[in-house]
Formats: sequence, C-alpha cells, structure tokens
Amino acid sequence: MIAKTPQPPYYAVIFTSIQSQDTDGYATMAAKMINLAQQQDGFLGVESARDELGITVSYWESLEAIKNWKLHIEHTEARNKGRARWYSQFTVRICKVERVYGFEK
Amino acid sequence: MIAKTPQPPYYAVIFTSIQSQDTDGYATMAAKMINLAQQQDGFLGVESARDELGITVSYWESLEAIKNWKLHIEHTEARNKGRARWYSQFTVRICKVERVYGFEK
Repeated sequence: MIAKTPQPPYYAVIFTSIQSQDTDGYATMAAKMINLAQQQDGFLGVESARDELGITVSYWESLEAIKNWKLHIEHTEARNKGRARWYSQFTVRICKVERVYGFEK
Repeated sequence: MIAKTPQPPYYAVIFTSIQSQDTDGYATMAAKMINLAQQQDGFLGVESARDELGITVSYWESLEAIKNWKLHIEHTEARNKGRARWYSQFTVRICKVERVYGFEK
C-alpha cells in the first residue's frame, strides 16, 4: 500500500485530479495503466487515493524513466482519453525526493 | 481542491499513511493541523485524499519553512498522538518540485 522505495535521491510524479461526470471506463483504464507502469524500466512504486480529489504518486529512478513512461504509446492514448472524457482538471508535478522518514507499528 | 502553486522550484511534503483502528479524534485534529499549516510562513498549498490509503501533499517555499512547521509545538504534539494512536504506518517524503504542467476544462 505504502510504496517500498530505495534510499533517496529518486523521483516522484504527483498527479492530482478532479474527475468529470463521465467515469465510464475510467477504473479499468486506471488499473491497466498502473499495471503497465509497473513493467517500465526505472519504476519504483505507486501510491493512490481518491475521495473528492484523486492523488496518485508514482516513484521513479530517474527523469529519463519518467520521460520514457510519458512517451509510452498506450499511456499517451490513455492521457488523451483522460483529457477528453474523464478529467475536468489535473496537475502533474515532477519532483526530486531528497529525504524520507517513516513509522511502522 | 487542486493547490494553486507558483512556478517551480518549490518543495512538497508527501505524507502517505495507513490508519489504525482507533480513529477517535483524528478528523478534528487533521482539520486543525491543515488550518494551522495554512498560517505558517512559506506555506503554498495542500492536497489530500483518503480511501484505504491516505495521501496528503503540502507545498512550501523552502526547506526552512518545512523544518519550522515540523518543529511547531502543536504539530509536534499532533504527530506524537498520530504515532501513538491514529496511524499504523506512515511515510514522509520531502521533495523538490522541478516541473509542473496541468489541464483544466
């Protein structure tokens, strides 16, 4: 659930979104994209939660890995459908993870 | 809902958590902490979503602003209660936001 990532530095893509009224086909595509992302070189993990807002954070070894995933043809097609149908608004933030700490019972 | 942040660079704190069975008092404290964070110097915005996993991303002008917020006495007390009662697991990632793009209908 919480991604097990290596020691920093590595990269995070914070994808924050608000869905449109049209959610038909969204869940299937979202699951497909998470599955496909996991198969990419440099993928480190993903965390996702949604209530009114959706937040998906994916973790990557390098900016090159993020770029390659962005250019992946099926991901590009999914993004285009997302813009056309599923999202009313989204923001993508590319970040360098510098420090990590945690807690587990 | 989606934070209106300035042009990068700025900083993000990705707080990913799994709640324990004891949620008594959690929602009140979470709302209080978001309210208090918004009053801190260098605060830029916050985004939050929860289903099985909780993800809260707060945005800050500088690492110093993040450090000051971490040392805030009421925030420290809330974190201690969080460790003792409300969370079974959490991870905090401090990141530098390097690039941002978005979409709005």
